Amino acid sequence: MSTCLLCLVLLFFSVVAEATYSPGGFHHLSSLRQKKKTSKSKPELPFETRYFPQNLDHFSFTPESYKVFHQKYLINSRFWRKGGPIFVYTGNEGDIDWFASNTGFMSDIAPKFRALLVFIEHRFYGESTPIGKKSHKSAETLGYLNSQQALADFAILIRSLKQNLSSEASPVVVFGGSYGGMLAAWFRLKYPHIAIGALASSSPILHFDKIVPLTSFYDAVSQDFKDASINCFKVIKKSWEELDAVTNKKNGLQELSKKFRTCKGLHSIYSASNWLSGAFVYTAMVNYPTAANFMAPLPGYPVEQMCKIVDGFPRGSSNLDRAFAAASLYYNYSGSEKCFEMEQQTDDHGLDGWQYQACTEMVMPMSCSNQSMLPPYENDYEAFEEQCMSRYGVKPRPHWITTEFGGMRIETVLKRFGSNIIFSNGLQDPWSRGGVLKNISSSIVALVTKKGAHHADLRAATKGDPEWLKEQRTQEVAIIEKWISEYYRDLREEN
Amino acid sequence: MSTCLLCLVLLFFSVVAEATYSPGGFHHLSSLRQKKKTSKSKPELPFETRYFPQNLDHFSFTPESYKVFHQKYLINSRFWRKGGPIFVYTGNEGDIDWFASNTGFMSDIAPKFRALLVFIEHRFYGESTPIGKKSHKSAETLGYLNSQQALADFAILIRSLKQNLSSEASPVVVFGGSYGGMLAAWFRLKYPHIAIGALASSSPILHFDKIVPLTSFYDAVSQDFKDASINCFKVIKKSWEELDAVTNKKNGLQELSKKFRTCKGLHSIYSASNWLSGAFVYTAMVNYPTAANFMAPLPGYPVEQMCKIVDGFPRGSSNLDRAFAAASLYYNYSGSEKCFEMEQQTDDHGLDGWQYQACTEMVMPMSCSNQSMLPPYENDYEAFEEQCMSRYGVKPRPHWITTEFGGMRIETVLKRFGSNIIFSNGLQDPWSRGGVLKNISSSIVALVTKKGAHHADLRAATKGDPEWLKEQRTQEVAIIEKWISEYYRDLREEN
Repeated sequence: MSTCLLCLVLLFFSVVAEATYSPGGFHHLSSLRQKKKTSKSKPELPFETRYFPQNLDHFSFTPESYKVFHQKYLINSRFWRKGGPIFVYTGNEGDIDWFASNTGFMSDIAPKFRALLVFIEHRFYGESTPIGKKSHKSAETLGYLNSQQALADFAILIRSLKQNLSSEASPVVVFGGSYGGMLAAWFRLKYPHIAIGALASSSPILHFDKIVPLTSFYDAVSQDFKDASINCFKVIKKSWEELDAVTNKKNGLQELSKKFRTCKGLHSIYSASNWLSGAFVYTAMVNYPTAANFMAPLPGYPVEQMCKIVDGFPRGSSNLDRAFAAASLYYNYSGSEKCFEMEQQTDDHGLDGWQYQACTEMVMPMSCSNQSMLPPYENDYEAFEEQCMSRYGVKPRPHWITTEFGGMRIETVLKRFGSNIIFSNGLQDPWSRGGVLKNISSSIVALVTKKGAHHADLRAATKGDPEWLKEQRTQEVAIIEKWISEYYRDLREEN
Repeated sequence: MSTCLLCLVLLFFSVVAEATYSPGGFHHLSSLRQKKKTSKSKPELPFETRYFPQNLDHFSFTPESYKVFHQKYLINSRFWRKGGPIFVYTGNEGDIDWFASNTGFMSDIAPKFRALLVFIEHRFYGESTPIGKKSHKSAETLGYLNSQQALADFAILIRSLKQNLSSEASPVVVFGGSYGGMLAAWFRLKYPHIAIGALASSSPILHFDKIVPLTSFYDAVSQDFKDASINCFKVIKKSWEELDAVTNKKNGLQELSKKFRTCKGLHSIYSASNWLSGAFVYTAMVNYPTAANFMAPLPGYPVEQMCKIVDGFPRGSSNLDRAFAAASLYYNYSGSEKCFEMEQQTDDHGLDGWQYQACTEMVMPMSCSNQSMLPPYENDYEAFEEQCMSRYGVKPRPHWITTEFGGMRIETVLKRFGSNIIFSNGLQDPWSRGGVLKNISSSIVALVTKKGAHHADLRAATKGDPEWLKEQRTQEVAIIEKWISEYYRDLREEN
């Protein structure tokens, strides 16, 4: 199989997929749309929805900068009393309702802290779009979609909220997972006067500018499968050749469509290989006992479940058939899918926005090595740059994130600067390879679990949660408690 | 005298004047232009001049943001060896050459540290104007003139410079005085991964959002004069009534023009009162033995010199005559001025830019109390806002600086966050009232001298420097040495 033919990249981040760059283009997973389909109606949340007017641009004073858009946020004051802590979720790339419904941890601990809960939507996602549905069409307007503007939005909104609540001395703790975790960590670093601490879950803030090896993400996916079963890893690794072989046959795509039970005939091998790879990558990301994740009906660790299927085939079975069966578990965990949609699906989950961000600031270079279970590909920056230019008319700024937020030699820099950040990671989450995995100082700490998936700690506690997850959450609560009591002590001393 | 008639504000910052808002408009001092006149030719500096391409906007990705302007910077590598420290002056509102020639401290200590010296011009000042001379005419373009963009410029330039020098492990220390000192402190807070420490001299980072009382600046000016001579303070305080009385007479302005030896006839009492007040305010700012400041030909402390003149008049002399004589010392220290220019002078020192900044982000509200020596006035925010709108078409964002950079309850916030900042202040500098005057933590420290003027510590050492100034500089050097040796120790441990 030619490396180039299947040089796909699937990059996904949180519950909502995120695409980053690849020589092959902007692939992302169809899985999410299926998921969405089953939950078309928005989750019913115990929050009041509000809107806050924000300037389009905080970092200039051009006439354009004064344009106002309305930022959505959710608020729950049930447990709060004036002066008490405020827990803010720094929204990432999607509808804030989704993050609120997937971050049960904050609601779980709110009564203990008597905390106000606030979930702020990220600009240009969900309803918080500056010029309505056209926001994602205009390069001019999309230009204001970026992390620094988002952080400034949070700062302004939080300050105003505290003022309106007449509770300006309330300590604010920020929470976030995935890109939202990056935002939480950066918010504490850039706005220490607004947040006393941050819980940054599964935030790959070192996945920029080649701080971590380009192959680390896919190496981690592969490792998860190897850990579950060497045979499973090998089968999947070999399946790509068979995929290639099928496709290269006469009427190969037709045959493949049938084999893969696609709803419509496939037009390209990319769709199929993306679909397969996506299943493995996503499953690695949610690889923890599934009581609180969307693969919930399945018992135990999803990667193990997949590998059981792979390993359970009779000797001599086709590797591709096994890989397909494994992937089907991900896309059809409920068993209700009659066929699979693999092509041309539009997305309204914010992926457009994320792809724009990936083309401007969120440049996270990756490659896939020969040792990996997934089809290998080389990082091709020039091709990526060209794609961004043709798609959005923008030239990426690949060194900007590390210039603005740091990351290089982070241990040395933050050893003597900053405080009160928890970087939580589960090592089975492939994104953990770009995370902070060692304590930096006495109060910038890493909570790392050997198992653990993409921001599993932020999800609601459920009965079947494994011990390592319970323990991680207990530690988080204890640390946040310490920040808050320290803050109130300081406050008393001030007065 | 009506409060309103003379409700002038004179706000000045560093060697280059800065205007902030007043009900009366954007007055600033003519003194600077006189100074400039005598030094029309730029200082000859031991620096190489270079230019660095910068994007117009770092915080958006609009097509406009990619426009490039060339940022000027000065560099002196005479004492440097690769891997050694880099001392960067974070340029403020004016030609960088002026700051380089007025910041001899950095050159004085460079040999000891074997440091590279870099002075970076602030965007929209000097030669670093995005669209040439038109930069200050267009609200659209001026919109990108602000402190956050400036800090990002510094970050990008420093990072690129280190890369080009193949000296990426060099520790960077930033220095700045006045607004440049604010930038230095903020740079360390926002870009700790780029600068290991900051010397922020006379940086009134608390002069925003009513953190310090509105009257503090003029109270401090008055206190300087009171300290020199109670009589002098009283005379000046009473002189405004006489100014008012003269002007209200028939042909009063003509009489005043003659009395004040103006080069052209006065059109308004404002010019005269601004001219007078300016002399007192500026002299308070440079109130230290003058060997290194522009009033150099005079011996001793300038305020005392002024008060000697005031007090030396025979009993019964007019207060206005005395005040005029005192002010003349400031404007005509060399004795060479035949007449005084008090009106309609254009400025090419960057004041236009500063006034724009004062109308957008650098909103430093002030008022002048009845107890002050200067004409009292109330703070009138609405009038200020209207002026900004009519002059630049912008609406000020008065809470933005404290949202972006903090300042409120700074001791509590920075007690547990950040490190390696020196806030140096001399209490006779009226701007010191908005500065950090107490140690915040073991490494965020205040070096305060009872005497001392506006960033006197940054000027070149001269033979006649008083002990308190020498001592302040010695402490600064010791602290910077500590940062650097700590950094190199960390670096060794890393490797």
